[in-house]
Amino acid sequence: MYRTHDNNTLNLKNLGEKVKLSGWAQTIRDKGFIIWIDIRDRYGMTQLVFDAERTPEAVVKKAREIGREYVIQIEGEVIERESKNKNISTGEIEILVEDLKILNASKTPPFTIEDETDGGEDLRMKYRYLDLRRSPVKNKLLFRSKVSMAIRNYLSQKDFVDVETPYLIKSTPEGARDFVVPSRMNEGQFYALPQSPQTFKQLLMVGGLDKYFQIVKCFRDEDLRADRQPEFTQIDCEMSFVDQEEILETFEDLTKHLLKEINGVEIEKFPRMTYADAMRKYGNDKPDIRFGMEFGELNEVTQHKEFKVFNEAELVVGIAISGGASYSRKEIDKLIDWVRRPQVGAKGMVYVKCNDDGSFKSSVDKFYDQDDLKAWAEKTGAQPGDLIAVLSGDVNETRAQLSALRMEMATRLGLRKADEFAPLWVVDFPLLEWDEDSKRFHAMHHPFTSPKTEDLDKLKSNPGEVRANAYDLVLNGNEIGGGSIRIHDKETQSKMFDYLGFSEEEARAQFGFLMDAFEYGAPPHGGIAFGLDRLVAILGGQESIRDFIAFPKNNSGRDIMIDAPAQLSTDQLKELNIEVKLSLD
Amino acid sequence: MYRTHDNNTLNLKNLGEKVKLSGWAQTIRDKGFIIWIDIRDRYGMTQLVFDAERTPEAVVKKAREIGREYVIQIEGEVIERESKNKNISTGEIEILVEDLKILNASKTPPFTIEDETDGGEDLRMKYRYLDLRRSPVKNKLLFRSKVSMAIRNYLSQKDFVDVETPYLIKSTPEGARDFVVPSRMNEGQFYALPQSPQTFKQLLMVGGLDKYFQIVKCFRDEDLRADRQPEFTQIDCEMSFVDQEEILETFEDLTKHLLKEINGVEIEKFPRMTYADAMRKYGNDKPDIRFGMEFGELNEVTQHKEFKVFNEAELVVGIAISGGASYSRKEIDKLIDWVRRPQVGAKGMVYVKCNDDGSFKSSVDKFYDQDDLKAWAEKTGAQPGDLIAVLSGDVNETRAQLSALRMEMATRLGLRKADEFAPLWVVDFPLLEWDEDSKRFHAMHHPFTSPKTEDLDKLKSNPGEVRANAYDLVLNGNEIGGGSIRIHDKETQSKMFDYLGFSEEEARAQFGFLMDAFEYGAPPHGGIAFGLDRLVAILGGQESIRDFIAFPKNNSGRDIMIDAPAQLSTDQLKELNIEVKLSLD
Repeated sequence: MYRTHDNNTLNLKNLGEKVKLSGWAQTIRDKGFIIWIDIRDRYGMTQLVFDAERTPEAVVKKAREIGREYVIQIEGEVIERESKNKNISTGEIEILVEDLKILNASKTPPFTIEDETDGGEDLRMKYRYLDLRRSPVKNKLLFRSKVSMAIRNYLSQKDFVDVETPYLIKSTPEGARDFVVPSRMNEGQFYALPQSPQTFKQLLMVGGLDKYFQIVKCFRDEDLRADRQPEFTQIDCEMSFVDQEEILETFEDLTKHLLKEINGVEIEKFPRMTYADAMRKYGNDKPDIRFGMEFGELNEVTQHKEFKVFNEAELVVGIAISGGASYSRKEIDKLIDWVRRPQVGAKGMVYVKCNDDGSFKSSVDKFYDQDDLKAWAEKTGAQPGDLIAVLSGDVNETRAQLSALRMEMATRLGLRKADEFAPLWVVDFPLLEWDEDSKRFHAMHHPFTSPKTEDLDKLKSNPGEVRANAYDLVLNGNEIGGGSIRIHDKETQSKMFDYLGFSEEEARAQFGFLMDAFEYGAPPHGGIAFGLDRLVAILGGQESIRDFIAFPKNNSGRDIMIDAPAQLSTDQLKELNIEVKLSLD
Repeated sequence: MYRTHDNNTLNLKNLGEKVKLSGWAQTIRDKGFIIWIDIRDRYGMTQLVFDAERTPEAVVKKAREIGREYVIQIEGEVIERESKNKNISTGEIEILVEDLKILNASKTPPFTIEDETDGGEDLRMKYRYLDLRRSPVKNKLLFRSKVSMAIRNYLSQKDFVDVETPYLIKSTPEGARDFVVPSRMNEGQFYALPQSPQTFKQLLMVGGLDKYFQIVKCFRDEDLRADRQPEFTQIDCEMSFVDQEEILETFEDLTKHLLKEINGVEIEKFPRMTYADAMRKYGNDKPDIRFGMEFGELNEVTQHKEFKVFNEAELVVGIAISGGASYSRKEIDKLIDWVRRPQVGAKGMVYVKCNDDGSFKSSVDKFYDQDDLKAWAEKTGAQPGDLIAVLSGDVNETRAQLSALRMEMATRLGLRKADEFAPLWVVDFPLLEWDEDSKRFHAMHHPFTSPKTEDLDKLKSNPGEVRANAYDLVLNGNEIGGGSIRIHDKETQSKMFDYLGFSEEEARAQFGFLMDAFEYGAPPHGGIAFGLDRLVAILGGQESIRDFIAFPKNNSGRDIMIDAPAQLSTDQLKELNIEVKLSLD
C-alpha cells in the first residue's frame, strides 16, 4: 500500500497518527538541521519535516537526494505545525518523517510546476503531462468532468437515453470537409468520421427512442482558426413529438440547472430574440447581452443633408461608447485605425462627442447641426460623456464591423465579466444563406432543418427570407448550442435536396437511408447540440477552450507531444491499397 | 403540444380525463361499428377506441385510413375497458377518441414490428430504424444506457475523473492493425484511431490525475470474427499509487455494484485463479465456472499400458459428462465427429461409460482394465452414469479442444444459465507469448505491462515463464476486463522494448513521449479496461453483443443501412494527396 491518506486530508484531528503518504516533491527547503518538503498529489499538499534530531539519519540523508518532481513515499507521524498556513486544509499540521522511499526520480522539469509557470505554450504542449500537474490545468479537467456528469445525470433523469452512434460512417459532400478512413476489407472504399451524429439521431427518432442524448466526439477537417480543434465534443440531443417551444424549455432548464449546480447562479427566464433583431441590434447572431451598446440605425436621421458617404450607404449605424467623450484626438485616431484594420475592414468612422453640457462635437460638423446630432444620440441611447461611433456601407459588412467594435470596446471597458452569465435564445434563423462562391443558396444549418410553414411560399420568390424552425442558445456572446425542428416527411426532404442542388441520384446515394426511413412513419422531431468544450470554458469563466482539453492539437492540427500525424510504413499503405501523392509545390 | 401523456401512463385513476396521445399504430382491429387501435411509443401501449356511436363520423372515417406504423395523434377521454389486459399498465382503460391527426403515413414495414419478428438478420440491419422499434432491441439499448450511467456514477463517486483522450493519434506497429486517417493539412501524413487510450491514460497518471476513467470508442482493423466489431466501446480506467491488490478490489467492487444494481445479484467475493491453474483445470484463460467439469490430467494413470496414442501424447486429459453413460453408440459417434470438426481439431476421442453398477465400459478396453478406468474416473470426478471424454496430444491444442467440448456439453446440458453470474479473477498471466510466425516472443498484453520482480531473472533463460502483474476479470466464460500494473521507469521500459525487438530508433519514434514522461517523476500506476459491449450483453443475459449496439456493422465491417464504407470522389482524394491502388486479384 502506497498511502493511507491523500495529501489534502490530514489536519489537527489526526495528531499523533502514523500515516503513509505518496506524491510529488513540490518544494524543498533544506535548513541544515531541518528539511521541509511539500508533497503534492491531485488532491492537495502536505508538509513533511525531516528533523535531524528526530528522523533517522539514513532517512535524512536520503531526503537530500530528492529533487523537484521526485515521486516519494513516506511514513511518519502527524504533528502540529509551528507556523500555520491557513490557506490549505492541511496547513495546521506537518508529518515528522520516519521512513522514506524514492519511488521515481525526476529530471528538472522544462518549466516550473506552479500556478504561474515560466513555460510557453509550445513547451507546455510538448510536455503536456507535466503541464497537467499544474493546478490551473488540472482543475479545468476536473471541472469538465464535473460538468459532463451534471449534464448526464440531468438528462438521464429526464428520460433521455444515452445511445452511442457509430464513428465509422459515410462521407457526405454537404458542409465541412470530412476526415476519412480507408477500409482494408472493402478495397478502395472509405469510411468518414462524423461531423455530428445528425442523421443517426434522426434515425433513432424514427426508431422510436423518443429522447436521445450522447456526449460524443465529432470531427471536422477545416483549416484551423485559433481555438478550433479538428476533434471536438458535442452534447447531442434529439426529441420526438415536440415543437420548438418544448425543445427551448427543455434545454433552457438544462442550462439553468448547470448554471445553478456549477456556478451557483440562478436565472429566471432566458430572453429570446429573432435572428433579424439580433442582427439589427447587435450586428451579430450571437450577441453578448451582458452589456447594452445596442446599435442605433441612423439612415432616417442622416439622409436629409449633403453628406454623400451616408446618403449612398445602405446602412448608417452607430453605438454609444460610455465615457468616450473624454477621448483625446490621438485616442480617437487610434480607434479609427482599429476599425480600419483588415480584420475589421471599415473604411472609416464618423464620431460624435456628447459633451457634459448637452452639446455635441462631431467629425462631420460641416454637414450636421446640433439638432441632427441630438437625434443620433437618441437613436443610439448616448448620454452626456459618451462617444458615438458611426460606421456606414453595405448592411452585412457594416453590421459585422460595428459588432467587432462593440465587442472590443466592451472588453476595454470591462463589461464582459467572466462571472456574469447572460444566456439568450436566438430564434427564427433564415433557412438559406447565399454563397458568393457557388452563386447559390446553401442550407444555413443543414439540409434537414424544417422551414416555417408560413414562409414556404417565399421559397421560390424570395428564398433568403424563408425562416427556419432553427434556434441557437447564446451565452455571453458565444453560441453554445444550436438546433432545429427537422423535416420528417419524405416529400419536403426531397424538395429541400432538390432546392439545394442535389440531383436525385446524389440525394439517393448520400441520404437514401434517411429518405427511406421517412417512408415508414417518422415522427415529428427536433433537437439541439451543444459544444461541450466551449460550454465548459464559459462556465469556467475562460475565453480559451484549450486548457479544458486534456491533449489539444495545435493550429496545424498536430499533437506535438506524440508527434502526430506521422508517415505510415509502405507496408501499411500497401495493405490499405493507397498511395501517397505529394503535390509538387 | 403533441401529447399530454406517454402511452404507458394512463390507468383507472385517470378516468374521465381528456388526454392527447401520440405514437405509432401497432394493431388495428376494425369490427365495423367499433375500431380498436393500439398506439405505441417507447414507453408502452394504449388502446384507442373509435366508436361509431360516440366518435365523430369524420374521425371514424379517417381512422380507416390508418395502417400499421402510421404516426398518429389523438384526443379523447379515458374510459374503463370492458375486457381488461392485466399484462400492461394501461390495460384497464382505453381512450374514446374524439379527434385524430395522421402525423405521418407509413408503407408496410418489410418485417413485423413485434417481439418475435419475421425479419431476417440482413433485413433487420438494413432497416435498423424499424428494428429499433421492437421491444427486445429497444430494451437492450435502454439497458445499455442504464448500465453506462451506473458505471459513471459509481466511478465518479470514487473520485475517478472522466477525461476525454484524443481520437486522432499516431499509428503504432504493435498489436492489431490501426485504422488510419490521412491528414490534409500535414501532407503525406496520417493519424491513427486509437485501439485503446493506453498511452494517454498512462500520461494522465504521470500528469497526476490519480484516478481516471472514460467510456470510449476504440478501433481495430482486424478481420472480423462473428460478434466482433471494428469499433467497440471500452470502460477505460487507470489509478496511481496502487498495487495489483488495490486494483482488483476497486474493480471487483464496481462489478459487484453493477450485479447488484442491475441484476439484483449479490456476490460475496470473487474467486481468483492463476493463469496456469485456469489452463490446467479448464484449458482456457477465461473459464466459465458456473459449472464444474474440471479437467482431469491422465498422463500418470495411462502411461503404464501399451496404448501408443496416449504414451506418445504430451497431454492426456478428460472430463466427465453428466449422464453421458446412457448415450447410444450413434450419439457417441456424433460427439466424436463433433470434436473432429476442423473448428475443434481433435484427432479422435477416447470415452469411458461409467455404469450405474460401478463398472466401466470404454473404447480402449483392449488396453485398460477396470482398475485403470476407475483411476480415470477419480481424476475427472466422474460419477456412475457419466461419460468420460478423453483427448490427447500437444498440451496447448488438447486443452483448447477439450475446453471447446466442455463448453459445448455445458450448453447442451443447460449448465450455462443466463441469470447465473460467476465472476472470476484470472491472475499471473505470462508476460510473453511465443509467436510461431515471427519465431519470437511478443508481449501477451502490451509492452507496458510490468513483469513480476521475482521472475525477472528468467527473462533470458526462460522467457515464457516470466509472469506479469496482469489480470483479467472473467464473467460466465467471457473476458469482460483486463489490465495490469504498468512499468513506470524508463530503464525497465527500454529493456522491454529492446527485448520485444524494437530498435532504439523505433522505440523512440513510437513511444518517445512515454519514455520522456517516465523521466519526469512517473508514479507507480496500473489499470484495467472493460469491454462495455460484452459486459452489457452478459449482464443482459445474452450471448450476442450485436443488439446492444444501436447501429452495428456486419462481418465485412459494413454498415448496410447507410451503405458504408463507400468510394470517395476524385476531388476528395486529390485534396488528401492519396490515390487508390486496387490490387489486381
